[in-house]
Amino acid sequence: MTYCVAMNLADGLVFVSDSRTNAGVDHIATFRKLYRFGIPGERLIVLQTAGNLATSQAVVSLLRHRLAADGVNLNNVPSMFAAARLVGDTLREVVEHDASPSMNSGIDMSSSFLVGGQIKGDVPELYNLYPQGNFISATVDTPYFQIGESKYGKPILDRALKHATGLEQALRCALISFDSTIRSNLSVGMPLDVLVYRKDSLELPAGYRVAEGDAYYEGIREQWCSNLRRMLVELPSAPALYLE
Amino acid sequence: MTYCVAMNLADGLVFVSDSRTNAGVDHIATFRKLYRFGIPGERLIVLQTAGNLATSQAVVSLLRHRLAADGVNLNNVPSMFAAARLVGDTLREVVEHDASPSMNSGIDMSSSFLVGGQIKGDVPELYNLYPQGNFISATVDTPYFQIGESKYGKPILDRALKHATGLEQALRCALISFDSTIRSNLSVGMPLDVLVYRKDSLELPAGYRVAEGDAYYEGIREQWCSNLRRMLVELPSAPALYLE
Repeated sequence: MTYCVAMNLADGLVFVSDSRTNAGVDHIATFRKLYRFGIPGERLIVLQTAGNLATSQAVVSLLRHRLAADGVNLNNVPSMFAAARLVGDTLREVVEHDASPSMNSGIDMSSSFLVGGQIKGDVPELYNLYPQGNFISATVDTPYFQIGESKYGKPILDRALKHATGLEQALRCALISFDSTIRSNLSVGMPLDVLVYRKDSLELPAGYRVAEGDAYYEGIREQWCSNLRRMLVELPSAPALYLE
Repeated sequence: MTYCVAMNLADGLVFVSDSRTNAGVDHIATFRKLYRFGIPGERLIVLQTAGNLATSQAVVSLLRHRLAADGVNLNNVPSMFAAARLVGDTLREVVEHDASPSMNSGIDMSSSFLVGGQIKGDVPELYNLYPQGNFISATVDTPYFQIGESKYGKPILDRALKHATGLEQALRCALISFDSTIRSNLSVGMPLDVLVYRKDSLELPAGYRVAEGDAYYEGIREQWCSNLRRMLVELPSAPALYLE
């Protein structure tokens, strides 16, 4: 499985992905699921993937190879909407190419994508691409999307994340959401890939890889866990009626 | 969907169930999913159900009707293990009776159960029955089980619940786990049915129904949510490296 979250906030974009892939529990590996495209000063486009790894990688490889060729590519699409369409079209192309009723029966070849970024002259946008290749856009009401193993880490986002949340604060919220998921589900694992983009900077952030044992991440994990336990102790006691 | 959690702790047993059932999003109703059996001073047996409501209700109805008849029933089984077996056997009987390849194609007739309680002379036990009717037992290492929509509410249990946690504290933990689930998933809903059993009391607790707007539940929900937000603000800031 996989867990990716992306946020489109007042101040910019936040992306965090895990890097565990598994085919059964006895075939676990580390693969990056966060890909950065763009031209400094002109555009940043970030892709995150979940689902069939062969499909996801083929889509990203085709998108990369085509950057140098003539025709529509992520370096010349006129809008983030067009970028999301291009990713969706490439996804359809890959699935149609690889589909083989005689060889793939029972195998799920599908992939989901999050596509976010900013192209000069436009505001930052964030899209959630379904395995069918069509997509929805994040809004002020719903400023974040998740793909993959999303349930464990959703409550903290629903409780604490707003469109107005600052980037650094939103990143902390995302990291806690990952900790919740990693603690409860083996199929999501370290390291985490983080990328934070400041609105209108049109820079290509290097991003950061949070490795196992990372001091900051371990610190907030422990603090969060011990504070949660303390919060639970400090809640008022249940009325006697509850216990009778 | 459904969400039920049950805990077998040093001091006794805690059960909490939601009461929402749905067949699609346009057919929502309230049904109790927590059932109490037993003889005061001699035994308490609690069942919680998730899955196909017709199957769950038929199992509980048969178990109830047979209390008065000759033969093995929940009032005379010699152990909690035998009680769990009886529930599993009744589940198989119902599914086999209702199974009809021509009428049920594509319909999931299966149900899961949590079966917990204490019979005089034994310690309290808790079992998680799979849809196949076989089951596993809670232990000191893993003192809780969930059935139904379990993912949203699992992180708080994994972080804060231990076998030594007191009953009242464990109940709070369960209620927060329900709040996390209800906030993020429409298919789990109020009211909640709560039952707390003190080890060796051999009483049949009345249990408590937490209705929408319940003052205590609303109070801890709000306190939890605002404290979580504060905790996030109070975490140390992410290093600059994370944001570059």
